[in-house]
Amino acid sequence: MSEEISQHIDQMIRHEDDDNRNPLPERLDDLEPEQIALLLESLPQDVRRHAWNQVSVEHYAEVLVAMRSEARESLLRQFDSDTLDQLTSDLDAETLIELADSLPDEIVDIALARMDDRQRGHYEQSASYAEDLLGRYVDHELLILPHNSRVRDAERLLRRQVPDYSEHVWLIDRTGRYTGAVAINQLFGAASHQPLAELYDQDLEPLNADLPLKDACDRFETAAVAALPVVTAEDGRLLGRMTQRLAFEVVHEGYEAQLMASAGLDEDEDLFAPVMRSSKRRATWLGINLLTAFLASWAIGLFEATLQQVVALAVLMPVVASMGGIAGSQTLTLMIRGLALGQITTANMIPLLKKELSVGGLNGVLWAIVVGIVASVWFESAAIGLVIGLAIVINIAAAALSGVLIPILLERLKIDPALSGSVILTTVTDVVGFVAFLGLGTLLLV
Amino acid sequence: MSEEISQHIDQMIRHEDDDNRNPLPERLDDLEPEQIALLLESLPQDVRRHAWNQVSVEHYAEVLVAMRSEARESLLRQFDSDTLDQLTSDLDAETLIELADSLPDEIVDIALARMDDRQRGHYEQSASYAEDLLGRYVDHELLILPHNSRVRDAERLLRRQVPDYSEHVWLIDRTGRYTGAVAINQLFGAASHQPLAELYDQDLEPLNADLPLKDACDRFETAAVAALPVVTAEDGRLLGRMTQRLAFEVVHEGYEAQLMASAGLDEDEDLFAPVMRSSKRRATWLGINLLTAFLASWAIGLFEATLQQVVALAVLMPVVASMGGIAGSQTLTLMIRGLALGQITTANMIPLLKKELSVGGLNGVLWAIVVGIVASVWFESAAIGLVIGLAIVINIAAAALSGVLIPILLERLKIDPALSGSVILTTVTDVVGFVAFLGLGTLLLV
Repeated sequence: MSEEISQHIDQMIRHEDDDNRNPLPERLDDLEPEQIALLLESLPQDVRRHAWNQVSVEHYAEVLVAMRSEARESLLRQFDSDTLDQLTSDLDAETLIELADSLPDEIVDIALARMDDRQRGHYEQSASYAEDLLGRYVDHELLILPHNSRVRDAERLLRRQVPDYSEHVWLIDRTGRYTGAVAINQLFGAASHQPLAELYDQDLEPLNADLPLKDACDRFETAAVAALPVVTAEDGRLLGRMTQRLAFEVVHEGYEAQLMASAGLDEDEDLFAPVMRSSKRRATWLGINLLTAFLASWAIGLFEATLQQVVALAVLMPVVASMGGIAGSQTLTLMIRGLALGQITTANMIPLLKKELSVGGLNGVLWAIVVGIVASVWFESAAIGLVIGLAIVINIAAAALSGVLIPILLERLKIDPALSGSVILTTVTDVVGFVAFLGLGTLLLV
Repeated sequence: MSEEISQHIDQMIRHEDDDNRNPLPERLDDLEPEQIALLLESLPQDVRRHAWNQVSVEHYAEVLVAMRSEARESLLRQFDSDTLDQLTSDLDAETLIELADSLPDEIVDIALARMDDRQRGHYEQSASYAEDLLGRYVDHELLILPHNSRVRDAERLLRRQVPDYSEHVWLIDRTGRYTGAVAINQLFGAASHQPLAELYDQDLEPLNADLPLKDACDRFETAAVAALPVVTAEDGRLLGRMTQRLAFEVVHEGYEAQLMASAGLDEDEDLFAPVMRSSKRRATWLGINLLTAFLASWAIGLFEATLQQVVALAVLMPVVASMGGIAGSQTLTLMIRGLALGQITTANMIPLLKKELSVGGLNGVLWAIVVGIVASVWFESAAIGLVIGLAIVINIAAAALSGVLIPILLERLKIDPALSGSVILTTVTDVVGFVAFLGLGTLLLV
């Protein structure tokens, strides 16, 4: 993001540190709501609370919508009734839907009571769809005409009401069913008496409101359209539109969620979450990891007698485990991307497994030789070199196999492979690595 | 992606496996180019080659542009001269710019020779900008009028030439300098003699062509516009426009690159890359990791005498290292996201470090107690419990510290923290963990 925001962050924190002797930046109105949201997220909790006072009332809702939910809620909890009153005085349906989960029920009720009937209707309709369904996120800003209108009707409508938000006029029949949409650009080339139905844009296939939001996004990956119509699944009534912008926002959030999940974090994690809250959440992930670490320890414990006799094995253990872990994580990452893109199917799993096993086999042999020679020289024992070399080949092959199969298995079990894939994989490569290495050591060295 | 594509993938692989007894899917024309690209990427190399024959000639260029570069190049290498001839017969400037790096120079020359003068001019202009600059990716499809035109001039232009690609008419002065743009929607409300200059869309601040592409994308995060004008840095001449779609594609690629980098992979990595090529690339990453693993072994080697006396230390070593590694990766991931978003500055680094150290401290103490008790019971020695507990506190604190500082340091050194952050962090937590644990063991247990 821009230099401008870093400067604002620095200025605000210095102002707080210097007991307010450093000047505050002026009001934040030169920033876009998304930039203000990012600025607030980048501030420690106490500075964030003061920085909120620099936000103009008319930006309240937009800034809150643009914030990630944890940081947003930390602010909302500290609002006085005046601020809440200003916030709820002029919300539209889409904004309230976004904020409702972060607001106390009674505040949502107040906001609803202050809405006009049309917006309230939109809100209730959106709220009737679950959080993961497209219907909840429909945009209601539409220019709508009856399906038997002509070009001059559209022109008349556009003269009265200039939209900065839409490139289409949407047509419905008497029962509200979507019949088609006409690109506004098309009106110029047409005769004024021409029926709009003759100008329908063929690219705008409607989306069902009860489609999962993520599936709806896929349609925008391939269709270069600014918006698609959203209709009720039962009777094809036009509810509103889904914009390309929403699709891309959802895809971004998905990627961010994937990145954060790889460390057991949530995509809404606040950079400056309160210490207690953050500790609690992370403790869970550390606890899960501890169980797997104890499993590895248990595997090592099976060979205590061997370790006592050949202490070189204890010294070299991490090398075997880590080579397997790294090789496996490469395969796993390729699979996680493939699954996210929808590239992995029943039929290409076998050739993929063959390829990953071949790559693993080649690298296993290569690095087994290198590590074998280094270990032989270090501990002056060719047998140690042989043992670690064989263990590495076994562990890298196991890593390739699990790198392909674990994410597929997790996906089938409806568990996010980005979240738990690497913990499970590391457990496998640790245990296989230690057992192979210490087991071979017991056979060949003791 | 859709069910449809998985079915195509399966059908094509079965066709190959069954010696062509299973029927091939019909021509792929019911799929969008982006879907065909994904389908091809999901197929093993030999099947991919055959599947290409199902692509219609008129989709060649679009499909290749939509493919990731490694898979694309694997196909292009196998094209016969006929296919190349068909491919190069009707390319526009934007497409050739995308494909040029994957094509042999002589083929680029042929394609250029076949272009009309206007497209060739666009190509040469785009090619004069480096790969990371906005100027290279400019879209040239524009409706342009002189800056003193009136509404009726725009209407006349639109009647002659209905654009499906733009929502604006762009205005330039006599020297080609950009003066402003008018939203087509605005024309309806205006009088036909009104100068277009009075209707300028104020949201369309021009971007300089020599801006890094990534920085240009930031502008779309906050501005809800379909496209922004791109001008030359020297004299403000209108070169073309940058679309929202391009911005989002670049951001997507950035996220994918980040995911892949975390395992030392490239975002263009082909799911079915040839085994030799893939092995070579991954060998580098394994080699780097091997060096760090040997560093950890060397640290353990310092305590060989201790290990020989207290073999329980060898058994418990992985627990200390892994708790530090996991705690550190959580901090690191939060930092990588923060740096990518531009949330981390000089001033908020200190409060952030304090917060992460507090979270680390709390979790360190909590898990030190748990692990200490388990270890005491397991090895019937309170001293072992004390040693491992202390080592865990030290290692989790070191992890929090390095989790914050390593990515900041890497960023300052212009090294991607997503690529090398976790390797360096794991080395630190391994070495600190082993030295703390075995060092304390030497002091208190021997």
